[in-house]
Amino acid sequence: MISDNVNAFVETFEVSGAAGGPLAGLTFAAKDLYDVAGHVTGCGNPEWARTHAAATGNAAPVATLLGAGATLVGKTHTDELAYSLMGANAHYGTPVNSADPRRMPGGSSSGSAAAVAAGLADIGLGSDTGGSVRLPAAFCGIWGIRPTHGRVSIDGTMPLAPSFDTVGWFARDLATLARATAAFGLPVEGDRPTRLLLPVDVWACAEEITVAAVVPLLARLEAVTGPAVPIILAPEGLPAWFDAFRVCQAAEAWQSHGEWISTHEPGFGPGISDRFRIASEITPEGWEAARAMRQRVTQRLTRILADGAALVFPTGPGPAPMRNADEPTLNAYRNRALQMLCPSGLGGLPQLSIPAGVVDGGPVGLSLAGARDSEGRLIALAEIATRTGR
Amino acid sequence: MISDNVNAFVETFEVSGAAGGPLAGLTFAAKDLYDVAGHVTGCGNPEWARTHAAATGNAAPVATLLGAGATLVGKTHTDELAYSLMGANAHYGTPVNSADPRRMPGGSSSGSAAAVAAGLADIGLGSDTGGSVRLPAAFCGIWGIRPTHGRVSIDGTMPLAPSFDTVGWFARDLATLARATAAFGLPVEGDRPTRLLLPVDVWACAEEITVAAVVPLLARLEAVTGPAVPIILAPEGLPAWFDAFRVCQAAEAWQSHGEWISTHEPGFGPGISDRFRIASEITPEGWEAARAMRQRVTQRLTRILADGAALVFPTGPGPAPMRNADEPTLNAYRNRALQMLCPSGLGGLPQLSIPAGVVDGGPVGLSLAGARDSEGRLIALAEIATRTGR
Repeated sequence: MISDNVNAFVETFEVSGAAGGPLAGLTFAAKDLYDVAGHVTGCGNPEWARTHAAATGNAAPVATLLGAGATLVGKTHTDELAYSLMGANAHYGTPVNSADPRRMPGGSSSGSAAAVAAGLADIGLGSDTGGSVRLPAAFCGIWGIRPTHGRVSIDGTMPLAPSFDTVGWFARDLATLARATAAFGLPVEGDRPTRLLLPVDVWACAEEITVAAVVPLLARLEAVTGPAVPIILAPEGLPAWFDAFRVCQAAEAWQSHGEWISTHEPGFGPGISDRFRIASEITPEGWEAARAMRQRVTQRLTRILADGAALVFPTGPGPAPMRNADEPTLNAYRNRALQMLCPSGLGGLPQLSIPAGVVDGGPVGLSLAGARDSEGRLIALAEIATRTGR
Repeated sequence: MISDNVNAFVETFEVSGAAGGPLAGLTFAAKDLYDVAGHVTGCGNPEWARTHAAATGNAAPVATLLGAGATLVGKTHTDELAYSLMGANAHYGTPVNSADPRRMPGGSSSGSAAAVAAGLADIGLGSDTGGSVRLPAAFCGIWGIRPTHGRVSIDGTMPLAPSFDTVGWFARDLATLARATAAFGLPVEGDRPTRLLLPVDVWACAEEITVAAVVPLLARLEAVTGPAVPIILAPEGLPAWFDAFRVCQAAEAWQSHGEWISTHEPGFGPGISDRFRIASEITPEGWEAARAMRQRVTQRLTRILADGAALVFPTGPGPAPMRNADEPTLNAYRNRALQMLCPSGLGGLPQLSIPAGVVDGGPVGLSLAGARDSEGRLIALAEIATRTGR
């Protein structure tokens, strides 16, 4: 049993993985959205835990990692119902970001990121709807991947917005991340991206000092691929893309949880209750318009990335906000971050966040995103570019 | 005497250049802000022409080109008092953009750009306060340079905003542009920029299709310098930089012309009168704040470009607006363009606009901007990158 000194875990226990599997010798921690047989899936909210019985089986991603030989060491904190990005949970506290304890760990997969960053697990199982693996990975200075939407089964997982929800995982090094990726049946090598695209509108959302911190890693990637080619990613403007994301996500979140919330009035913390209230007010016309925009975005991303290109951009606008940041500061940060994170969400694209540097003590990440099913390309490029000695 | 088939000229005449000079055999056209002995300098406004006597001498830039052997073939249209960017003059019409006659030629150096684009002069003498050479160069598919502020004498020239005003010149090819540049005593070769910086916030102001049109030339530049390094140019946001530019320019423009305007009520066309009215209302406090911001911007640009780096970015957001565009469309375009053009103006930096491609029939330009006195670096890089056969 591990000793949780960073408030990463809801509970610690040990379930051994299958003997002799490819992940033998590795441990993992599972976000408390994933069913683990015999345990209540709490989803970050005490009322949820109180009103749900213990799971009778393992969620598909948990079963996959156990079957591949990794040992489960516990269930980790999540933002309430995964509907936040910062890692603050009004009921269970905020996991500690070991990379810079003054700062938020990021969320919603806060505990799994914190556990991996603190060395309490080798693999962190998270989920990513709007950035809940990518952003905490960047904040905690670790690797994180969100695979192609629909490619990895999430059976036995609390849904948030099913047309966006993916599993995702963290590791402290690329080799471990790649082993976990392979365990999920995804390729971890292959042709590199044919070229890199540099979405200037996404980059323009980042802080100056963060851009300066990630460009050395960009240069290493470009040494493999040639210069990244500037592109305007969102001709309609990233705020319009974000709005389409926000509306679709909210409408689906209310479909997933509106009835339970209306029945149980679960006493959400700041931000979460606001978001669900707004979600309850999405009109059918608003949702329809957002879905139409999403379809255009998806078609555009498919076209741009069709020939094996990959997007490269800072994962978030800057390092994690400070733990004592006020709500307006966090909201402004979140809105900026979601403009950067929403393209992959809208398009169902895989995105790999690579630890890229440190700004004022806080880690920042650089991301690669590619067409659907391009995980192997992204990992292959990252492997070459970050190989020691290059 | 040339035949003006593009409404570029206020009047055509011929003044021969000095025999045997380095520009022998070349012709030039001078914007009607420059004194030419024996001619009234009309500055694009009939009341100005009516209330000013014929010049008794040549403005310094005219004298320089004549002294270097170029032959002056006439005086060209300008936006009224040079206080616009599009090239529409309510009194004298809009010069024709030969590259795409459906589109505006750009201003305020509209006639000189149009004359060069139409082949009616080899060199076009313009002036650039906020972009009045750079933008028409891009719109007309020709080369244009704005040198370091204060480096080339503008004695005998109507001022607009003296702390921004520079001479500038156009040519259809780099060899001619370089010959004119040398005639003004500026270097045309030297070390290339040590590296290129890619200001993502400036790029994000451009249209998607324009970015796509200029990236092939960017790739040729990068083949010489290595990959351009992303940077946030304006941590305060380009709108804040533009606002500082706008206020400083307006305050100086009112200092230059307020008394004459108040006395003569010159009947300006649309846009110009509004801008001078706004200029008359700048408060001392507003001007002071804008100057303080300008000082910070200048210090930042000096620091960023200190080691021989150069900025590379699209000259304007897109090809020229159509001649029949309405005023709101033109205003929106102007505001976007000025966010891209204001950094060099604020910093007094040289900027070279290179013809880079065509979007829907209309030319677009890619610019290099460097530290003060870096004209030679910019031209040296452009020369290598655009050399035939590369």
